[in-house]
Amino acid sequence: MSSLESKVDVLIIGAGPAGLFAAHGLAKAGVNVRIVDQRPIRVAAGQADGIQPRTIEVFKSYGLGDRLLREGNQIHMAAFYNPGPNGGIERTGRASDVTASTARYPFEITLHQGAIESIFLDPLREMGVEVNRPIIPTALVLSKDEGLLRDPQAHPVKVTLKHLDGEQEEEVVHAKYVIGTDGAHSWVRKTLGVTMDGEQTEYIWGVVDISPDSDMPDIRNKTAIHSPNGSCMIIPREDDKVRLYIQLSENDVEKDIETGRVDKSKIGPQQLMQVAKKAFHPYRVNHVGEIEWWTIYVIGQRVASKFSVNERVFIAGDACHTHSPKAGQGMNASMNDSHNLVWKLTHVLRGNADMSLLKTYEFERRKYAQDLIDFDKQWSALFSGKPRTEENQDGVAHEDFLNAFQKFGAFSSGVGVHYAPSMLTQPTHQGLSQNQIIGTRILPHVFIRAADARPFEIQDLLPADTKFKVLVFVGDITKSEQLERVKTFAREITEGENAFLAAFNPEIFDVWSISSGKKEDVNYTDVPVALRPHWSHVLLDDTDMYARSGGGGYTRYGVDSDRGAVVIVRPDGYVGLVTPLESTEEVVDYFSVFLKKTSSS
Amino acid sequence: MSSLESKVDVLIIGAGPAGLFAAHGLAKAGVNVRIVDQRPIRVAAGQADGIQPRTIEVFKSYGLGDRLLREGNQIHMAAFYNPGPNGGIERTGRASDVTASTARYPFEITLHQGAIESIFLDPLREMGVEVNRPIIPTALVLSKDEGLLRDPQAHPVKVTLKHLDGEQEEEVVHAKYVIGTDGAHSWVRKTLGVTMDGEQTEYIWGVVDISPDSDMPDIRNKTAIHSPNGSCMIIPREDDKVRLYIQLSENDVEKDIETGRVDKSKIGPQQLMQVAKKAFHPYRVNHVGEIEWWTIYVIGQRVASKFSVNERVFIAGDACHTHSPKAGQGMNASMNDSHNLVWKLTHVLRGNADMSLLKTYEFERRKYAQDLIDFDKQWSALFSGKPRTEENQDGVAHEDFLNAFQKFGAFSSGVGVHYAPSMLTQPTHQGLSQNQIIGTRILPHVFIRAADARPFEIQDLLPADTKFKVLVFVGDITKSEQLERVKTFAREITEGENAFLAAFNPEIFDVWSISSGKKEDVNYTDVPVALRPHWSHVLLDDTDMYARSGGGGYTRYGVDSDRGAVVIVRPDGYVGLVTPLESTEEVVDYFSVFLKKTSSS
Repeated sequence: MSSLESKVDVLIIGAGPAGLFAAHGLAKAGVNVRIVDQRPIRVAAGQADGIQPRTIEVFKSYGLGDRLLREGNQIHMAAFYNPGPNGGIERTGRASDVTASTARYPFEITLHQGAIESIFLDPLREMGVEVNRPIIPTALVLSKDEGLLRDPQAHPVKVTLKHLDGEQEEEVVHAKYVIGTDGAHSWVRKTLGVTMDGEQTEYIWGVVDISPDSDMPDIRNKTAIHSPNGSCMIIPREDDKVRLYIQLSENDVEKDIETGRVDKSKIGPQQLMQVAKKAFHPYRVNHVGEIEWWTIYVIGQRVASKFSVNERVFIAGDACHTHSPKAGQGMNASMNDSHNLVWKLTHVLRGNADMSLLKTYEFERRKYAQDLIDFDKQWSALFSGKPRTEENQDGVAHEDFLNAFQKFGAFSSGVGVHYAPSMLTQPTHQGLSQNQIIGTRILPHVFIRAADARPFEIQDLLPADTKFKVLVFVGDITKSEQLERVKTFAREITEGENAFLAAFNPEIFDVWSISSGKKEDVNYTDVPVALRPHWSHVLLDDTDMYARSGGGGYTRYGVDSDRGAVVIVRPDGYVGLVTPLESTEEVVDYFSVFLKKTSSS
Repeated sequence: MSSLESKVDVLIIGAGPAGLFAAHGLAKAGVNVRIVDQRPIRVAAGQADGIQPRTIEVFKSYGLGDRLLREGNQIHMAAFYNPGPNGGIERTGRASDVTASTARYPFEITLHQGAIESIFLDPLREMGVEVNRPIIPTALVLSKDEGLLRDPQAHPVKVTLKHLDGEQEEEVVHAKYVIGTDGAHSWVRKTLGVTMDGEQTEYIWGVVDISPDSDMPDIRNKTAIHSPNGSCMIIPREDDKVRLYIQLSENDVEKDIETGRVDKSKIGPQQLMQVAKKAFHPYRVNHVGEIEWWTIYVIGQRVASKFSVNERVFIAGDACHTHSPKAGQGMNASMNDSHNLVWKLTHVLRGNADMSLLKTYEFERRKYAQDLIDFDKQWSALFSGKPRTEENQDGVAHEDFLNAFQKFGAFSSGVGVHYAPSMLTQPTHQGLSQNQIIGTRILPHVFIRAADARPFEIQDLLPADTKFKVLVFVGDITKSEQLERVKTFAREITEGENAFLAAFNPEIFDVWSISSGKKEDVNYTDVPVALRPHWSHVLLDDTDMYARSGGGGYTRYGVDSDRGAVVIVRPDGYVGLVTPLESTEEVVDYFSVFLKKTSSS
């Protein structure tokens, strides 16, 4: 192999949010990864900036949440303005920006894309991974050799990269797996011959990022303005800035008849501000200093027909789905694609899991993308529609808009994401955890540690560390019958042929016991040793010493507080399986489908 | 001046917790500061390790709380063991470790002194301040020139320092002010001729820091053991370690008759463990690996007769007060001495405040130290006493101990610290804030921002940035009469001769408005501009959008929700003054006593 040829486990093409998320997750899991990007420097302003509640939880699970919360602006409240009696607008109501009662963080975060990318770039650098740029791929060849394709450790993908700086030299990379996160106009997708299904809409919008001078009382809320002079949305952002989404009419812009694309040379940010000012009337809105960033777009709603080829080349992020930006979904959908893929690739590369696990990526994320487009079609139509007025009784009424806003809340917040039944998601015993829907993320809840009564949010105890979490709701073990059931379960998972904890590599599993007992009574030392690998792994469903948090966890999950249940949480935080304490075999079957038995180390 | 002579604003002698706290606070405030220490390297293990609830709030106010919370162990629960029926001990109860219902952090943090010192050393280094070591002071001369002593910018203190490394050279430092934070055997104190008042007790204790191997169910709680074989206290610590305080009898040790000091050469950590094992019976306790640190001490209870000489040389920390370590007070008292002194020195050095402000340091902190010794006498006697048993009816009953434990909670947690009336603390209008005691720290409470409904803990909005915080509880300004009162107040503080905000340097003040209105109705733009220097400075006494936090703030502080009040919070977070909205003159008088009028910048 010449110096211009190299091998890598995973090559990522495109260093936007989806690509950086994947690179960070893989590098953190110890995977040999390389990431390239065509841009000479990273994004400095504008672009995507909305982070939804579930995505904040996901950031937190990688240890990145605190920085996101520190740097980002939070949107808690939404306000709605409609045509008022005097020709201008008036407020018709305020409501929670997020409609998702189980959200751990019931708000959106806004932060410009460059700052979000830095949240990944800094830890990546500490792990020795830099984005190689500016580089473009010029060829991608996937081997047709069935033997190579079936061998998870083979390098069947040959990618030719061209360096755009200096001498523009080419190099060849042999990768086990490739992820194309190269955006809406994805070169990887086109090279694979994957089509985008869906269509372009008639809606045209402009966007400006400004530091506002305004007397509008809701300039720091997410404010939807339906004015007689067009629709506008205010998105407050970090550093006292705001983004304005401004509806444009066919008269405002010129479109290329063939592509449907708007000709950006015929309109500028000052014209956008003029349209916004009309919508704001009678409130004032000006920009202080420069207009930081602006763009114009026509909403397209499309999903890629495939998300992978032979489970060796994947696409993720905007390469898979495009839709309207106003619901703040794009970057979230993109990063959660990577979140879904990272742990699966890691377990296959480590030799723990069968390659069939990788098929669940497209199965789970393509269905999500289709749901997203369906949501976006309804949302965009409502948002881009004219308001109902005396003269226009066919327009969108405030109530319709507010109802839709709240109805879609669980989906748009991300906490409602529900993966369909598959090898990874088995809803057989849904009745044992009536409120913790199998296939959705583990509900946030505060438990206290039995040994020291310290409260913990359970999501913080279940990080995205590639391990499966075995939560043993041991019930009330002060009752001897229940204690016997728990001891039997503890014995079965450590002895005999169903002993999955012993038979599988224990680095794949993390075991927690959750008792329904009270802090005054429980001795953590009474829980069988197999179910408490460390003193800190026994939790109680009880309040902290000041009753400020905790308690009611069994009820929240809908688990019987006498008899308990076993809840398996996937490495990405989604519940995969619930069984009674007696069903050790079902647990073993669940893992045996996609994990290989390896002897314990 | 030769190269071995230099000038500095503040010279700090001793780089333990009190000295580092002072150095950090002063450096952060932009004061020219130097800190020296006799030890060649910092403390690596053992020593003080308990951080009380109020001290956590104080760390948070300097931006140091998150690291403390991340690195430290938390103690939430206390357990009590007493003689059981079979000759060993048994648990007689569990209770909250902290008894202080208003504590923002209702727990103690344990972390070894070296780690706590690092929390200051790292930001100090970023600000360009390093501890100079190993250096000892050999002479300290305070000028007797009245003119120099009265000039806050003069350098009347001449300190000779000897470098212990290399060539042992001497240098001379001319300081405006000196702080002696050089511990219980303070050279500064002795050089000033300041006596320690109080006495030595008969109680002898040993301490070991170990990684335990134990089946004691409360090994991760703060556990007080009163056994027939002596008393013992378990203090759980970071990294799964515990500290054991072990009561020793006269037979266990040898004392020097003259000094009363224990001869440490006659006993070792293994003997301490043997005594502990007897107290633990029937539970097992062994140490895994090395015993990290150990010591033996006789409890002394003394307070320095003076805390400063001419308000030019101060002592703080152990140099001022010594007492028993088991209530975890020492490091807290020490750092809070510095917290009290730092902002006062800063304002005098900046030329904002009269030197008389510095007299309040001794006034406030010496009284606190005396209260601490009184508390410690009662506490130590209870703790070192023998338990009540069938045979010993004069012993300490569990109930007595528990009652004392809870009664002293507000004091030992630090949240009960109450500064007596002085130029800084004027309780005239206590009735206007019935539950917010003037002279105590501002109660923690969550308010939401009017502009975006984002919840904030008010303590986080009032950092230790040397500014006085003017909290204007504006009441219900939807009522026109109240709105008029608020507008009048806003006018008076910005116009005319009582216009303190305009007349004093505005960098000294930070103004916040707190409305009793609701988030659905209030427009932050309705609050007079003088009372909202930024959109973020209008708060509401209401819950967040999900009613998870906030609301009830007027009731918590005991402020009338119609008529409001003005609450002045000192830079150290203690409430100094409460007035009605009409009493602008009282506010002006309060500041004029110790702040100099300067024209607004």
